[in-house]
Amino acid sequence: MKLTILRNELNEAVQNVSKAVSSRSTIPILSGIKIDANDRGVTLTASDTDISIQSFIPLERAEQQNATVHRSGSVVLPAKFFVEIVKKLPNEEVNIEVGERFQTMIHSGATEIQLVGLDPEEFPVLPTLQEDQVFSIAGDLLKSMIRQTVFAVTTSESTPILTGVLWSLQDGVLKFVATDRHRLGTCKVQLDTDPSLSFSGVVISGKTLGELSKVIPDQNTLIDIVVADSQVLFKLGNVMFFTRMLDGSYPDTSKIIPTNFKTELVLHTKSLSDAIDRAYLLSREEKTNIVRLSTVEGGGIEISSSSSELGRVQEQLDVTELTGEELRIAFNSKYMLDVLKVIDSEQLFIGFTGAMSPIIIKPRDHENSLHLILPYRTTN
Amino acid sequence: MKLTILRNELNEAVQNVSKAVSSRSTIPILSGIKIDANDRGVTLTASDTDISIQSFIPLERAEQQNATVHRSGSVVLPAKFFVEIVKKLPNEEVNIEVGERFQTMIHSGATEIQLVGLDPEEFPVLPTLQEDQVFSIAGDLLKSMIRQTVFAVTTSESTPILTGVLWSLQDGVLKFVATDRHRLGTCKVQLDTDPSLSFSGVVISGKTLGELSKVIPDQNTLIDIVVADSQVLFKLGNVMFFTRMLDGSYPDTSKIIPTNFKTELVLHTKSLSDAIDRAYLLSREEKTNIVRLSTVEGGGIEISSSSSELGRVQEQLDVTELTGEELRIAFNSKYMLDVLKVIDSEQLFIGFTGAMSPIIIKPRDHENSLHLILPYRTTN
Repeated sequence: MKLTILRNELNEAVQNVSKAVSSRSTIPILSGIKIDANDRGVTLTASDTDISIQSFIPLERAEQQNATVHRSGSVVLPAKFFVEIVKKLPNEEVNIEVGERFQTMIHSGATEIQLVGLDPEEFPVLPTLQEDQVFSIAGDLLKSMIRQTVFAVTTSESTPILTGVLWSLQDGVLKFVATDRHRLGTCKVQLDTDPSLSFSGVVISGKTLGELSKVIPDQNTLIDIVVADSQVLFKLGNVMFFTRMLDGSYPDTSKIIPTNFKTELVLHTKSLSDAIDRAYLLSREEKTNIVRLSTVEGGGIEISSSSSELGRVQEQLDVTELTGEELRIAFNSKYMLDVLKVIDSEQLFIGFTGAMSPIIIKPRDHENSLHLILPYRTTN
Repeated sequence: MKLTILRNELNEAVQNVSKAVSSRSTIPILSGIKIDANDRGVTLTASDTDISIQSFIPLERAEQQNATVHRSGSVVLPAKFFVEIVKKLPNEEVNIEVGERFQTMIHSGATEIQLVGLDPEEFPVLPTLQEDQVFSIAGDLLKSMIRQTVFAVTTSESTPILTGVLWSLQDGVLKFVATDRHRLGTCKVQLDTDPSLSFSGVVISGKTLGELSKVIPDQNTLIDIVVADSQVLFKLGNVMFFTRMLDGSYPDTSKIIPTNFKTELVLHTKSLSDAIDRAYLLSREEKTNIVRLSTVEGGGIEISSSSSELGRVQEQLDVTELTGEELRIAFNSKYMLDVLKVIDSEQLFIGFTGAMSPIIIKPRDHENSLHLILPYRTTN
């Protein structure tokens, strides 16, 4: 393999695939990035067996010569060092040449780097997916759906299935669900897709979706998603992002979401968020994060928290609407703040079914997302 | 105590003094911020006994009413929570009232905070310094001198005196020295001060100087420095920063700085820094940080590093001047990069006294700073 490539093109591709490099892999080949060069272009691949990312650099793009391949071939280079050095090469042009026993020479300006390359034949082969089930979604919409749900997955490895987000597609509606048993986030969107296409029970690791979000470009591009037997493939222009589905069956959460409320509240999202943030500061010192919400006589609500050592924070808030029974409820303010951060509506709805029952939080402007938090059972 | 104060003024003062609050103090009163209010203004104080910071808010400044004191008095409030909540108060105006047993009420907008205050009588009294030895220095100049030296102090508690920077003033020249026995940084500046004023052997903790740097405003203000028996006081406008000197006598480092060199080098600072940075990336993987510098036949130098597992980085650099003997030397590239980061001159001078002897690095434009690094003793 012998090629000349623009540093910026190489760097962008390297940064994209680097997210799939495992930092703690015991299999040496997986700590590398595979480079394939042929007469179509240069392909970079990294894989930690759960995620694989492939980035393709065409020889030319928009009249610009990105790369010239003098001799086709492949090599695997040590990722950690390669990712850092590519950023810092002194010249816009980079020459890479693979010699005997995969010894690789990299030249850029006066810099000469000799790297111990590995045999590309040892690198895992990416799965070939049945492309029967394919649908498209705008990149920023997918990012938003991930953001709406991913914080609610569990970090506990004792219930591996709950470290993922449940995906389903039915009648053109794509739906995400995430829960850690104390809270739940759901999000759905109507896609312009073949209504006969449907799947359910697809669970994708929350961590993987976080990495995927970082690779989705800011420009509004369509992403093609291929759902196969045990793998999902995201096609983002020249980047292919493969992930394994999580094994196991996701619990049915539909029944725990109440639809009738004893107390209903509509209020300004930012005012509530700021007030809870202040109460959280005190509750954090107690390490409980418990904040209380109570209806007050004459209308409105009160947000409060207290600490035996430090004192008390309380604040009355005006509300847009308040109907139903009087209420006094306690919850984990960190969980509530996580939800309020992603509510993309000036006003929000909160529904209560009693001091010991789930709290439902929804944006007021649309029905695309719904969040649930279990209250704290306190004695007073 | 009862007062009304602008949130921004209170916040700025709180952020300044917060740097002296100890996060791991076992003495409860030291985890607080003391507030004193009287007819001149409001004073905030924090202390961890090594550092004390006091910030004064005058009632009026530039026609703006900063604070109104309705009733003089004092209280100590829990710092960690107070620092965070002041930032997030909803209204520009904050009311603070101290009641019985130092119970303190804070009102801002609809937010009501009740805090358990502590008795200000228990708070340590700040030292009263003999103001015989006072000199002034521009804030940005002091910041720069700290930056030039503070990275070279040791982090090892086994030689406490070397965790500090040695200060001396002689014939109007203020000089700083820092060393961890592997490297040394010095910096000096001619001040417009009474030439009869002099001191030596004053050692101030590097960590304290780091905190001081953060409090020095970006605007170019003169700082008055009072050097007393065992304390140094920095007066920065309305902020007073007290620090204890470190106990012990600082080693004499003047004799280890060579003045005659076997090889002398002048070259472009950024080119050298970039080349060493690339070589460092590889040496870092070996956990040694060893980088080599060699003169090459026909002029110029070569920077290189190697790793048995990964490979080799090498790069030839043009130099402006090269005189004296041929050379091949190895050093800790991290130490060298620390120095190159603070060299404020386009070209730099490096003097070598042999492969096993100190390396001297100086800016070429002025004689205000000098850095020394001991080379690695390697076998090849």
